[in-house]
Amino acid sequence: MAKIKDLSFGVCFAGSIALNIFFVTNNLFGIYENKQLSWSQRAGAEAEAVAAVSCSGHGRAYLDGLVVDRKPVCECNTCYEGPHCSHFLPDCAADADSGDPLFLEPFWMQNAESSALLVAGWHRMSYVFGDQSSMSQELQKHILKVHSNARNAITKGKYLVFGVGSTQLLSAAVFALSLNSSSPARVVAESPYYPVYKTQTDFFETVHFEFKGDALLMKNTSDSAGNVIEFVTSPNNPDGNLRKAVLQGVSVNAIYDHAYYWPHFSAIPAPADEDIMIFTISKLTGHAGSRFGWALVKDKDVYLNMQKYVSLAEFSISRDTQLRALQLLKVVLKGDGREIFHFAYEKMRDRWEKISQTVSLSKRFTVQDIPPQYCNFFEKVRGPSPAYIWLKCEREEDTNCSAVLLAANIIGRSGSLFDAEDRYVRLSLLKSDDDFNLLLYRLKELVSKEGGADTL
Amino acid sequence: MAKIKDLSFGVCFAGSIALNIFFVTNNLFGIYENKQLSWSQRAGAEAEAVAAVSCSGHGRAYLDGLVVDRKPVCECNTCYEGPHCSHFLPDCAADADSGDPLFLEPFWMQNAESSALLVAGWHRMSYVFGDQSSMSQELQKHILKVHSNARNAITKGKYLVFGVGSTQLLSAAVFALSLNSSSPARVVAESPYYPVYKTQTDFFETVHFEFKGDALLMKNTSDSAGNVIEFVTSPNNPDGNLRKAVLQGVSVNAIYDHAYYWPHFSAIPAPADEDIMIFTISKLTGHAGSRFGWALVKDKDVYLNMQKYVSLAEFSISRDTQLRALQLLKVVLKGDGREIFHFAYEKMRDRWEKISQTVSLSKRFTVQDIPPQYCNFFEKVRGPSPAYIWLKCEREEDTNCSAVLLAANIIGRSGSLFDAEDRYVRLSLLKSDDDFNLLLYRLKELVSKEGGADTL
Repeated sequence: MAKIKDLSFGVCFAGSIALNIFFVTNNLFGIYENKQLSWSQRAGAEAEAVAAVSCSGHGRAYLDGLVVDRKPVCECNTCYEGPHCSHFLPDCAADADSGDPLFLEPFWMQNAESSALLVAGWHRMSYVFGDQSSMSQELQKHILKVHSNARNAITKGKYLVFGVGSTQLLSAAVFALSLNSSSPARVVAESPYYPVYKTQTDFFETVHFEFKGDALLMKNTSDSAGNVIEFVTSPNNPDGNLRKAVLQGVSVNAIYDHAYYWPHFSAIPAPADEDIMIFTISKLTGHAGSRFGWALVKDKDVYLNMQKYVSLAEFSISRDTQLRALQLLKVVLKGDGREIFHFAYEKMRDRWEKISQTVSLSKRFTVQDIPPQYCNFFEKVRGPSPAYIWLKCEREEDTNCSAVLLAANIIGRSGSLFDAEDRYVRLSLLKSDDDFNLLLYRLKELVSKEGGADTL
Repeated sequence: MAKIKDLSFGVCFAGSIALNIFFVTNNLFGIYENKQLSWSQRAGAEAEAVAAVSCSGHGRAYLDGLVVDRKPVCECNTCYEGPHCSHFLPDCAADADSGDPLFLEPFWMQNAESSALLVAGWHRMSYVFGDQSSMSQELQKHILKVHSNARNAITKGKYLVFGVGSTQLLSAAVFALSLNSSSPARVVAESPYYPVYKTQTDFFETVHFEFKGDALLMKNTSDSAGNVIEFVTSPNNPDGNLRKAVLQGVSVNAIYDHAYYWPHFSAIPAPADEDIMIFTISKLTGHAGSRFGWALVKDKDVYLNMQKYVSLAEFSISRDTQLRALQLLKVVLKGDGREIFHFAYEKMRDRWEKISQTVSLSKRFTVQDIPPQYCNFFEKVRGPSPAYIWLKCEREEDTNCSAVLLAANIIGRSGSLFDAEDRYVRLSLLKSDDDFNLLLYRLKELVSKEGGADTL
């Protein structure tokens, strides 16, 4: 009896010891795997809790979002409401006005782990980096690598300037090119062009430059004496066509706005190699809110003047933004560095095909023609995948095309804003899936009613 | 004997069971505390690994810092080198040139947990927040609360504008105040003044304004017709004195630069209540690299014009920077919301006392006089704690004071940069402990040699 008792006692003891060994090993292993975070634990838990707030796929809670009863609440996509954004508003307009690049949000949700970033309280408090510059060397290296992967720009022999989005760099380039001008430089762009070229140049109204409208008009008047600065957007916003400068000559300088020169939006026939090329993370990764852009500049003096502009306007580009951009570009370069381009191209092409198929059934509307072209990145001929539809109202009486669309509950951007006729309207293909789906639905509805309207 | 064996066996068994209970409880507790993070785990572990790199307290490794063999390496403070920054360079100059606010870095190391921030890959990709604005409402609320705690500004009845540091807002305010001017507005500031007022205004060189130097000269010439814009820095950079506008009149507008109007640097006699007041996180929390500032503006048109400037220059302020600023201000407001002010004041006062005590032994040098004053925040009379020493070389032959200091291995900023005599030099008290200690050491050395030099 005592032996049995001893035996069972021994078995229990051995079991208990084994369990101890398991726990100790497990904890050691945990520590080794660094599963038990220290000071970063709270921030991670907070971010995960916010991300876990359910918004029915039609909204999102944010760390810096609205807080009710100390809990983050959903911010709903356009046309959705309710505490979980589950209620669709049937009469809501399809808003295709802005170039908000939310089409890439699902990519970042899919890459949650690799794109997460923990910022320490003491991160980069100084005005300068260790090398006394205000530009992260690591970020510079990553930008060059992304261009090399995308095969869209020749970076060798160029200087890099960082800016608060490409917006700031447009202005910096105009200042830099006109500083030593004896008479005011004339700033032009071929119509239809991105409205900011005009509004920005007009607002700053310096003694050094003035906006003079359509580059083609200047070409035709052959009045090309004095310093001229031409904005060239390629692919173009609004119509997605690849462009070259209209004006030539020793006193003409071109600023190439390559915001959309990525495999998402256009064939890349060859790496661009212009003297001043401006890029932005907004349209590459979709992070418009981060306000980060860069310029590749060939001439040293122009580069120095652009740096001086950024420095006098605001010293330098936020270290928090530079760190974020670096983390995002690390994800862009992950693996073979092609994943984001494939994801983005598929989505943009799919959207374009759906829209252009719908419009092809219409006699009232047409869209721009973008020929298939050989793409250096995909190494094959590829079809269009533009960021915007440049829609034309073909009926004689439809002189105000955005009003025609508005009557059908679609918000677009009028042609006149791009220095074109109001017979044109720009519709954004860049926004969220919700926005795009509603736009497509409303367009289909509009086209389907065409026959009826014709007979009225 | 058997009883003793049984007893010891029993004790071992009980111990083993107790250990198991401990592990089970601990693990359950761990799960309850959400210690096992999911997608944020990697980012936290990476940040902690970088923070754990040993740099001997004389340097720091950063997430976006230099990488050697895939490992982050130390960036050393001035005058230190080696893989762990442990080697002091004895002949290295004490650099007191810039206003880099690294004196607050230890505060953020102490508040590692509460200040850490995890940014998700999809954070605020849009151009706008949920309310269609580009300014975080939560951040606005926190800014107002920080002012209320610090008792340094009346925010009621004022509009808020965000900027890329205060630097951008200085320019935005000048544009806003001069947009509708019939003749160019004349921009002035009382000497000695912060050099950026001149360099920035000169660079932008618009048709709307021009820099005209010392406000006192304009007052004396009584030529005050037309639009005048006066920069008033209070407390002043370089000398720390509280200031009021020199010029008065219906056509005079003052821009109050209150970068240093915090209990760290000055007594707060009363909350400021000016029409345009500019603040920056650089000198409040020490995050100069984040480039975030704000303006409190009374007049609606001026506010709208400043918004327009920011919008045309670069759309809006980085969402990453706004999120970071929010997290930092949450820490500032933690508990009774006074901790950072106490920490910062103690450190600045200590530095000032050490330096002024040293200089008081000298006949060759003097420092500015800052009278003790009642402080609304501390609710008592308090002594000086300025951001800078405004040092004067008193010997007739020492007309170039910064050269005198440079010969003693101290780098300062010459008086002429502030539109003052070169008999003055500005020395920064804001930098890291290493920088300050070396400055104090070199100054002591210089003063101690005075007697000897006098007899030469």
